[in-house]
Amino acid sequence: MSAKTDRVEINEVVLRDGFQNEPDFVPTEEKIRLADSLSRTGIRRLEVSSFVSPKAIPNLRDAADVLRGIKRVPGVRYTALVPNVRGAERALQSVVDEVNLVMSIGERHNLANMRMTCDQSLAQFREIMTVIAGSGIFVNGTIATTFGCPFEGRQPVERVLWAIDTYREMGIEGITIADTIGVANPRQVGELTTTIFRHHPDLPLTLHLHNTRDLGLANALAAYDAGIRSFDSALGGIGGCPYAPGATGNVCTEDLVHMFHNCGIDTGGDLPALIGLSGGLPALLGHATPGYVVKAGTSDRVYA
Amino acid sequence: MSAKTDRVEINEVVLRDGFQNEPDFVPTEEKIRLADSLSRTGIRRLEVSSFVSPKAIPNLRDAADVLRGIKRVPGVRYTALVPNVRGAERALQSVVDEVNLVMSIGERHNLANMRMTCDQSLAQFREIMTVIAGSGIFVNGTIATTFGCPFEGRQPVERVLWAIDTYREMGIEGITIADTIGVANPRQVGELTTTIFRHHPDLPLTLHLHNTRDLGLANALAAYDAGIRSFDSALGGIGGCPYAPGATGNVCTEDLVHMFHNCGIDTGGDLPALIGLSGGLPALLGHATPGYVVKAGTSDRVYA
Repeated sequence: MSAKTDRVEINEVVLRDGFQNEPDFVPTEEKIRLADSLSRTGIRRLEVSSFVSPKAIPNLRDAADVLRGIKRVPGVRYTALVPNVRGAERALQSVVDEVNLVMSIGERHNLANMRMTCDQSLAQFREIMTVIAGSGIFVNGTIATTFGCPFEGRQPVERVLWAIDTYREMGIEGITIADTIGVANPRQVGELTTTIFRHHPDLPLTLHLHNTRDLGLANALAAYDAGIRSFDSALGGIGGCPYAPGATGNVCTEDLVHMFHNCGIDTGGDLPALIGLSGGLPALLGHATPGYVVKAGTSDRVYA
Repeated sequence: MSAKTDRVEINEVVLRDGFQNEPDFVPTEEKIRLADSLSRTGIRRLEVSSFVSPKAIPNLRDAADVLRGIKRVPGVRYTALVPNVRGAERALQSVVDEVNLVMSIGERHNLANMRMTCDQSLAQFREIMTVIAGSGIFVNGTIATTFGCPFEGRQPVERVLWAIDTYREMGIEGITIADTIGVANPRQVGELTTTIFRHHPDLPLTLHLHNTRDLGLANALAAYDAGIRSFDSALGGIGGCPYAPGATGNVCTEDLVHMFHNCGIDTGGDLPALIGLSGGLPALLGHATPGYVVKAGTSDRVYA
């Protein structure tokens, strides 16, 4: 996850960020089937679900059942989002390798999305760290709206650095900077990444991108060039945040892997397998998906 | 157009590459209206039509009428595609600032698209140069399938350099390298651009991109970083080549301008005006368009 390797790690978030916003509930057995298939594509990190309140996000009410049903594949880290102490307690009753905590650095977005002020979120994080202490679970902290908030606009770099320091001081090991509403541009991504690594050279840093303004892949490459080696992405490019106006799909896993492989950068991902799984999403979800390569084929496609 | 300025020039191709492949004929007066509106957005180069055979591409059969009907705006270069000697003769009867010749360096694609071998295309180019000599019209030559051919796959760099040399030797001043079927990747674009400028430091070089695999914007930025300052793009991201299987929309003008402006790179383009014009395309064409910013708004959009 640090800049010390050339290889990219994909954190597949389709089951969480992808499915949470779907109009229809995806049946538990379909989620398990997809998780198991994804586990065999060379993906090394898989966000399986969120221990969020079933009332807040009914689509993910089966988090414990999905985590119970999947077949673990060695080398894959299975993660779950944990929005609060209650979620952490539920996660502890399941088998997860990693939990992911989330706070928006935009105060108004955090209130809309998490129903907490930033201070309240950080207080929850401290409680969660106490609950999780000694479990051996890796803790990752996401900084939502890192590159801009739908209500407050662009956030100062200092506030991002403050959030990283605050997370790290309470024992959160990994950090995800999230372009929650897809407003980042490649220059901003490159500059912020460089600044973060100057302060924290060995930080396990992940980038979470949305393709809202078609800059997902350009932003990912700028981040790679600045040293980021870990990326969230969702199969088919589906997803979106129910509390973030203007948010659309995550950067698309198979399009991201296709770009990296074409650029000579290894992801460990089995691109034909990922394209095959993405091709099954429209039938599963009942609607088209935004991904490109699943429709156009890979760039080495030759016609007879 | 060379690497000596930081500013980007947009060559708007919606009226030609965009409209040529539409299922329905766009009425001549609508084309004139759109050309006149685009002329007032700060765009400095506008490909108005193609003097192609009306039988081959009926959608552009009104090339002369459109060129006769538009109001010229000082500072805007009005260009037309010229596929053969007959087209060059027709272009000379209209008022154009620039003509654009096209050959695919993939032999099979050139046969499918231009109905000529590459040798036959180059022989036509020489005849066209004789027809145009003394007219004062700038001649640009497009190298189609520069980054890969739908039938033959990736083309050798040497063949691209050969095409540039051959074009230049016959007096073609500007060169466009075209990713006709959207197979280029940012590393390939950066490396090829660097190689071309090493051989031809002052070449007026334009890049023509399609967003087939969602790499249009990443490729454009890689090209910018390697020194290209001139880009073809189409309002709304519409378009495609009728003889190139798998080809989809051009890189989208307003999304490209949005990216460059966000990165601090001037294009001279009036982004709100371009978005406004793009927003009118679905009603004009009777279908949705692939552009992003026209739907999501610019990245500085803030919600109440």
